[in-house]
Amino acid sequence: MSRTVLIHSGGIDSTVLLAHLLHQGREVHALSVDYGQRHRREIEAAREICAHYKVAHRVADLRALAPLFGSNALTDDKIAVPEGHYEELSMKATVVPNRNMLLIAVAAAWAMSLKAKSVAYGAHGGDHAIYPDCRPAFADALDQAIRLADWHEVSLERPFVGMDKTAIVKRGAELGVPFALTWSCYVGGAKHCGRCGTCVERKEAFLRSGVVDPTVYVA
Amino acid sequence: MSRTVLIHSGGIDSTVLLAHLLHQGREVHALSVDYGQRHRREIEAAREICAHYKVAHRVADLRALAPLFGSNALTDDKIAVPEGHYEELSMKATVVPNRNMLLIAVAAAWAMSLKAKSVAYGAHGGDHAIYPDCRPAFADALDQAIRLADWHEVSLERPFVGMDKTAIVKRGAELGVPFALTWSCYVGGAKHCGRCGTCVERKEAFLRSGVVDPTVYVA
Repeated sequence: MSRTVLIHSGGIDSTVLLAHLLHQGREVHALSVDYGQRHRREIEAAREICAHYKVAHRVADLRALAPLFGSNALTDDKIAVPEGHYEELSMKATVVPNRNMLLIAVAAAWAMSLKAKSVAYGAHGGDHAIYPDCRPAFADALDQAIRLADWHEVSLERPFVGMDKTAIVKRGAELGVPFALTWSCYVGGAKHCGRCGTCVERKEAFLRSGVVDPTVYVA
Repeated sequence: MSRTVLIHSGGIDSTVLLAHLLHQGREVHALSVDYGQRHRREIEAAREICAHYKVAHRVADLRALAPLFGSNALTDDKIAVPEGHYEELSMKATVVPNRNMLLIAVAAAWAMSLKAKSVAYGAHGGDHAIYPDCRPAFADALDQAIRLADWHEVSLERPFVGMDKTAIVKRGAELGVPFALTWSCYVGGAKHCGRCGTCVERKEAFLRSGVVDPTVYVA
């Protein structure tokens, strides 16, 4: 059975990807990363989802790195999370420098320890141009570096790169994904705020896909 | 003044590189990484060397990741450090999976926060074929990924890639590097053991370069 380390945020994309990989018969080991994000509720969501699927789950604690990241809305309580669409430039305040490379490097280290064949993550076609490390060219270069980082070759997989979030929600519905367990909101409350960029996106993806949205939103 | 983040282990290569970059007029910010290595004395050495050069120094604490690395001689006290030359295959036990990508990803995150132009590290021509992530092709691919990870382009520099350790010691002597402050030994004692792979290499590099070796060895 092919072994894969999945980067699992507790959100919709990585949860549907978990179901998708299990459907393919993979042995999945899920990794969440705690980098001091304010929306820590997502780590708890990841734990519940992995328990639901009976999949091994670990949390890599990178909080000690927070002082290196400088100020941004995801790790610094003093900066407000911007509301509205991702397209708004203000959303740039949510960028953690080099976050994707950090997450993927940790996942790859674990994959090498486990003799896994790949690291998979939920990058998709709707990822936003404001995040430089969501560009396909970035992932291609990093895939090449990971393949060369160990004698036992590990690759970087992005099975949803040709899909948008609406298509991912549809695929999740086919696979019976427990969407109510997933978490998207960046604000850090007990319920989804319904106003921040990821909440707006989450609502839209359910609306456009025609799948019932089980989320309880504050607004 | 061009700003650079230097990965600084406290050893000879990165200390000579620090002197070399300062000689070029760079503004250097030095980063050491604590990944639970047994030879923690090297972090203290890095601190003293940066104080000597009056350079900013930070330690990124990755110890919380140790459980993901599996067993190896550098992070697990239960495995003995092999003696003798690196060429011996037993030295493979010192490999921390994906270590270089982790160190470089953290340094690149800091470089992006600082708006630095590059990350520099002491990779050299004598690096050993047993470490897959010392291969130039690995560094080339990772350089490409780092350049794409932020809108503000950061590059990965290896100024000593065309030199061996003997040439690096010679360059250090020209620059007046305080070699007595540097640390190489993997064993973790109060003095250099004189027997482990890095101690054997250290001795050889001084002997071959004709530079006086100020190191006190147990053996």
